[in-house]
Amino acid sequence: MSILRYDPTSNDWVIFAPSRTRRPYELKKTDSPGADSRLAERSCPFCPGNEHLTPPEVFAMRDHSTPNAAGWRVRVIPNKFPALTIEEETHRTDDGPIFRHMGGCGAHEVIIESPRHNTMLAEQPVEQIDAVLRTMQLRFNDLMRDTRFQTIVLFKNHGEAAGTSLQHPHCQLIATPVVPQLLRLKHRIATDYFDQTGRCLYCVLLHEELAAGTRIVAENDRYAAFAPYASHVPFEIWILPRTHRASFGLVEPAHLRPLAELLKTVLLKLHAGLENPAFNLTVHTAPRGDEDKEYFLWHLQIMPRLTTPAGFELGSGMSINTVLPEDAASYLRDGAAATDALTAAR
Amino acid sequence: MSILRYDPTSNDWVIFAPSRTRRPYELKKTDSPGADSRLAERSCPFCPGNEHLTPPEVFAMRDHSTPNAAGWRVRVIPNKFPALTIEEETHRTDDGPIFRHMGGCGAHEVIIESPRHNTMLAEQPVEQIDAVLRTMQLRFNDLMRDTRFQTIVLFKNHGEAAGTSLQHPHCQLIATPVVPQLLRLKHRIATDYFDQTGRCLYCVLLHEELAAGTRIVAENDRYAAFAPYASHVPFEIWILPRTHRASFGLVEPAHLRPLAELLKTVLLKLHAGLENPAFNLTVHTAPRGDEDKEYFLWHLQIMPRLTTPAGFELGSGMSINTVLPEDAASYLRDGAAATDALTAAR
Repeated sequence: MSILRYDPTSNDWVIFAPSRTRRPYELKKTDSPGADSRLAERSCPFCPGNEHLTPPEVFAMRDHSTPNAAGWRVRVIPNKFPALTIEEETHRTDDGPIFRHMGGCGAHEVIIESPRHNTMLAEQPVEQIDAVLRTMQLRFNDLMRDTRFQTIVLFKNHGEAAGTSLQHPHCQLIATPVVPQLLRLKHRIATDYFDQTGRCLYCVLLHEELAAGTRIVAENDRYAAFAPYASHVPFEIWILPRTHRASFGLVEPAHLRPLAELLKTVLLKLHAGLENPAFNLTVHTAPRGDEDKEYFLWHLQIMPRLTTPAGFELGSGMSINTVLPEDAASYLRDGAAATDALTAAR
Repeated sequence: MSILRYDPTSNDWVIFAPSRTRRPYELKKTDSPGADSRLAERSCPFCPGNEHLTPPEVFAMRDHSTPNAAGWRVRVIPNKFPALTIEEETHRTDDGPIFRHMGGCGAHEVIIESPRHNTMLAEQPVEQIDAVLRTMQLRFNDLMRDTRFQTIVLFKNHGEAAGTSLQHPHCQLIATPVVPQLLRLKHRIATDYFDQTGRCLYCVLLHEELAAGTRIVAENDRYAAFAPYASHVPFEIWILPRTHRASFGLVEPAHLRPLAELLKTVLLKLHAGLENPAFNLTVHTAPRGDEDKEYFLWHLQIMPRLTTPAGFELGSGMSINTVLPEDAASYLRDGAAATDALTAAR
């Protein structure tokens, strides 16, 4: 059971999910929230044959096998320690003049990327990455039918420094009953730009990055991957589509395969160039009601966790980046030979 | 040499300081930016006798000794790997229709908290903590005479997980030539609240926290320390003054001693209750031009680094907190006996 509390100083809601840890003082040192001890493959709840160790699946790509048994290619289950649950209510209750809370209404699902315990997303065949992306979109569109959910954050944590607690490769999604202020801010800025210029800020940004060329990491007919001009962290990479869509839910399914191809290329380059760095991957998409707007472009953001944000970053929200995106992009581009060799070796 | 680049999607500036690392690919795994190898006390540049290992001091509290020699109680030096420097210009240059950069103008100083290499701030006598706070205020007010600086972020990183790279206890300050968007947002929200109610949001928040009582960690005549209603991380603690001032620079110097007393109490409680956790401490203060406004209250924020923000937090800006502030506060309050014992033992 969780609740949301409103922070009157930031206008944002904080999710309180005490069941994700045991007792306050068990949070000593740097435990990850909800971290189990690192499990051996045999007892991994995400491995085929161990389906009984997870809550019943909400979706799976499988051919002939029965639900909650082995034989699946991609499997979606509710998170065992959910941050938000569909049973809660969205009613707001005031706690005095400035404080306010609401039920922890939402959804929190895990997308198990493949039956293979030790194969990273970058190492999967393109068809498998495509299947993961299609599963993400299916779950996104299915959950958005629940009109209490204002947006869905799709994300992947790779490596301990990126906050993952289970090794078997997986993505997650969290559907929230409020629009996060960060999304509101980005949409407000993009809307202002559209009002002033009549153009989508992100489409212009993509055009400018392609014109400059120096920050491009890889591209194909449908997408471009680049280290953005004002990257907040070293080796930050955005993948933007060349076709305008505000929502990830509205992407033609056939366009997910070229995304899978480019994503594989980019992740292999990161893996080869930076020795399998920890990273977070997030899908940015328009919130409910803005899915068909002209002023936002859905995109992927990859944030390698190579540095530790410290007091300045936390206190100001500003970033100090020690690597120019031009240097990051050229390093990853030139590493192509090494990456090809790595791919060939597998 | 560093530059700032404008991020048109967030309206914020990113500081690029490539000289803080050597080559892009040396950022592999989880190196801290500018991290030196952990130095032995003998070769610690912050220890007395090693003053020649740092840039010349800009300020020191010392009785009879000569500058840049031993004999100081608190010492302020320019950061050897500065994020921003006073030599740079604030002129903005457009890089096409949406990108823009400016010089990395600012200041980046290190406040060495005492000559003692192995004594944490919490363990210092109150007089020494008071001396550190007075030094912070002196440097704040001195640097704000440079009208190019819009705000100064004062912060402390304690422990590796909080981003520190040198063990000898120190604080830092960074003067920025732009107002960080996070500050602008907080001030906009507080201004709106003031326009609607005629009251300072933070003074009301302090009043509500004191009235509830359940989240108070410690207090004295001039300050209260509490785990805020909508804490973003476990054991987050704010220290708010009972006297309204928007700027840290305008606090009566005599009021810094009771702050030192309360800060020591709070840090000892954290140390005892959570086994010396990593944390970041930040001073929040009004930017240039808003120092005398009625709608903001300067305050300290302590963010223990017990959990790792992951893809959801990075992608949405929202926080998932596994510890209710009521539980955190009661745990730290009840831990008072243990803390007293710890203090007595020293």
